[in-house]
Amino acid sequence: MAFQFKIIHKDSGSMARSGILTTSRVQIPTPAFMPVGTHGVVKTVSSQELWDIGYRLILGNAYHLYLRPGHEIVENLGGLHNFMGWSGAILTDSGGFQVFSLARLRRVTDEGVLFQSHIDGTTHMFTPELSVNVQESLGADIIMCLDDVKGYPVGKDEAEEAVGRTSRWAERCLQAKKRVDPALFGIVQGSVFSDLRKLSARGLSSLELDGYAIGGLSVGEPRETMVEMIEVTAPLLPKAAPRYAMGLGKPLDILDGVLRGVDLFDCVIPTRNARNGMLFTSRGPLNIRNARYSDDPQPVDSRCTCPLCKNYSKAYLRHLFHEKEMLGLRLATIHNLGFYMNLMASIRKAIEEDRLQYFVAEFRAGMEETDD
Amino acid sequence: MAFQFKIIHKDSGSMARSGILTTSRVQIPTPAFMPVGTHGVVKTVSSQELWDIGYRLILGNAYHLYLRPGHEIVENLGGLHNFMGWSGAILTDSGGFQVFSLARLRRVTDEGVLFQSHIDGTTHMFTPELSVNVQESLGADIIMCLDDVKGYPVGKDEAEEAVGRTSRWAERCLQAKKRVDPALFGIVQGSVFSDLRKLSARGLSSLELDGYAIGGLSVGEPRETMVEMIEVTAPLLPKAAPRYAMGLGKPLDILDGVLRGVDLFDCVIPTRNARNGMLFTSRGPLNIRNARYSDDPQPVDSRCTCPLCKNYSKAYLRHLFHEKEMLGLRLATIHNLGFYMNLMASIRKAIEEDRLQYFVAEFRAGMEETDD
Repeated sequence: MAFQFKIIHKDSGSMARSGILTTSRVQIPTPAFMPVGTHGVVKTVSSQELWDIGYRLILGNAYHLYLRPGHEIVENLGGLHNFMGWSGAILTDSGGFQVFSLARLRRVTDEGVLFQSHIDGTTHMFTPELSVNVQESLGADIIMCLDDVKGYPVGKDEAEEAVGRTSRWAERCLQAKKRVDPALFGIVQGSVFSDLRKLSARGLSSLELDGYAIGGLSVGEPRETMVEMIEVTAPLLPKAAPRYAMGLGKPLDILDGVLRGVDLFDCVIPTRNARNGMLFTSRGPLNIRNARYSDDPQPVDSRCTCPLCKNYSKAYLRHLFHEKEMLGLRLATIHNLGFYMNLMASIRKAIEEDRLQYFVAEFRAGMEETDD
Repeated sequence: MAFQFKIIHKDSGSMARSGILTTSRVQIPTPAFMPVGTHGVVKTVSSQELWDIGYRLILGNAYHLYLRPGHEIVENLGGLHNFMGWSGAILTDSGGFQVFSLARLRRVTDEGVLFQSHIDGTTHMFTPELSVNVQESLGADIIMCLDDVKGYPVGKDEAEEAVGRTSRWAERCLQAKKRVDPALFGIVQGSVFSDLRKLSARGLSSLELDGYAIGGLSVGEPRETMVEMIEVTAPLLPKAAPRYAMGLGKPLDILDGVLRGVDLFDCVIPTRNARNGMLFTSRGPLNIRNARYSDDPQPVDSRCTCPLCKNYSKAYLRHLFHEKEMLGLRLATIHNLGFYMNLMASIRKAIEEDRLQYFVAEFRAGMEETDD
C-alpha cells in the first residue's frame, strides 16, 4: 500500500489531531514518537525489543550509514530493514542536520554541502540528489529532503539564504526521487524568525511533498522561542499532510508540539537519558544512581508494566549501573521507550476524547511530583 | 526437593558419565556448563535470555557481591535469585579464587584471608565461616568451601600447606553451614603435584560434602599438566558425587574434563570472547571484526538457530562491533552461550550412546576447519 496519512479526529480545544500513517509495511497511529536508530540500531535494544514495546516507526540516519557501513553495502544486504531485522517502518534523516552538527570543514553552496567525515576526516559532498539516492538505497519508508541547517544564533540574512536554498533543494529532491514507494518530506527552516518560517512553510507547501518537517529547532534557542516557531509554522503547512517536529523532545516539548498540530517527533532523550541513569516515571524523572535506591525493593515505576518494572527492583538497576553492567543500560532504555510509547498512546486517547488540554495539565502536575 | 545427584549413564569408552543434578528449583542434566554471572548478571544478557538459551544453573561470586552491593542487601531483597530475576539454580564461588586473583595485600593465615578490596582498598577478612554465611545470605543452591588458592608456579611446601589449610577450612565450612537446602562442595587443591592432589582429594572425600571441585587450575600451568591433574584427581573423588572443574574452559578443555569424569564446568571464555568479537561456530571460531565480513550476508553459523544466526548477517554484527554498539556484544554472547549449550547437549547424548570418543574426535576435526 502506498504512503497515506489519514486524520481520525481533531481535538476540539487545540490544533491537535490524531491520525494514521500508512506505509507499505505498517500503520502508525499518530501523534507518534520515533526512537532514534542512528547506526542501524536503537542503542542497546534489538529490533524485536522495539517491536515488543509497540514501536512501528523508527528514525535512521543517511549521514551515518553513508559513512559506515556505506549505503551500497546496506542495499546489497537487502536494505536497512533487513540489515537490522526490523519489520516496522523507517524514516531516514537526509544528513542536513548531521553534517551541521557532527561534520567538520563544512562548506555550503547551492550545489550541496562539502564536509569532512567526523570518523576519519575524509571529504564528502552531500547534494540533494545524493541524499535522496542514499536514502532510497537504504530502503527507507519516509525520506527527508536535504536541508541547509543553521545554528543559533544566526543572522537573518544567512537564515534567509538557508530558507531559499532549502526550498530549491527540496525541488531537486523531488526530481531526484526514483522510487515510488517512499514518502518524501520537506523541512521548514528559518531559524527563530517568524517571517522566514512562514516564507519557508509557504515555499515548501507549494511543492508536492508527502509530509512537512519543522527543522532547525532545539539547536540552542530558548524553549519559548522553539514553541513559538512551531506555533507560527504548523498552521501554514498543508492540513492533510503529516507534520514532524525534528529533534523534539522532552515529554513537555512533545505536548506543546501536539497542541500546535504536530504529528511526529523524534529525540535521543529517552534513550540517551536512560544510559545516563535518568528514568521517566509517572511521578516525574528519577536518577537510579542515587544512593537512596541502593536497598529499594520497589520497581522504578509501580504503575509501569515494562520488563524492568515487572522483574526488577530499583536496587538491582542501581547495582547494574554501579557495576557498569550493560544490562542496566538496556533495561533503562526499554523502560524509557515504554514511557514514551505510553505517553503517545495517552495523548492520542485524550485527543480522541476531546480532553487533551486536561491531560496536558494533569501530566504537567504529575511531572512536578518528582522524587529526586 | 533436597539436593541430589543421579548418574544416568556411564560411557563405555571413558570415565565420562551423564547425570541429573536436582536442586530445590530445577533439574540440571550433566555434564553441564555454567555461565559466569559475577555481579549478579551474566554480562550483557538478561536472566530471561539465559533461560531461553536453556541454562538452568549459573555461577555467582560471593567475593564480588559481598563487596558490592553487599550480601545483606541482596538477602533483604529476597536473595540473589530474586535480585536478578533468575528462576534457575545458582552456584556461588566462595571467594577463595577471587581474593587470590583480584584482591591486594593478601595475607593467608589459618584463620582466613585478609585482603584489600580491588574496588576501594578497604580491608576485609574472609574466613570459612564468613564465606559460608555470605553464600547462604545470597541464597545460593550450591555453595563452595573457602579454599587457599596458590598461583603457578608455587613451591611444593607452600602447595602442601594450602592443601592442609583447604581441608581444615572445609571442615569449618561444614560446621558453619546453617541452612539445610544448599549443597556444599569442597575444592581440591595441590597445584601441579600429583601426590598433593591425591592427598587433597582423599582428605576432602572423608568429609560429608555434597560435591567436589578441582580448583587451582587454569592459573598459568601448561595445558597438559592441567589435564593430568584432572586425570589424577577425578578418580579419587566419591563416584556418586558431582565433580566440578573450576574455571574450565575452552571447548577442548571441557571435552578433556568430561572424558576424565568431570560433571560441571564454568568459564568466562564464551562470554568474554564474545565481547571481543570471537564467535564459536561448528566450523571453528571466527573474529567478526575481520574486514572480510563487512558485506557478508550469511549468518555467523548457518547450522545455528540462535537469535543472532536466525535474524542477522555477519555484516550486521561486524557493523555493530565497529560502531561499538552494545547490541553486538549481547548478540555475540547469546550466540556463544548457545554454542556451549549445544556442545554440552551433544556431549550428554554421545555419553548416553557410548560414543563420546568418536564425538570428541569429530569435534576436534571440525574445530580445525576454522575460516580465520
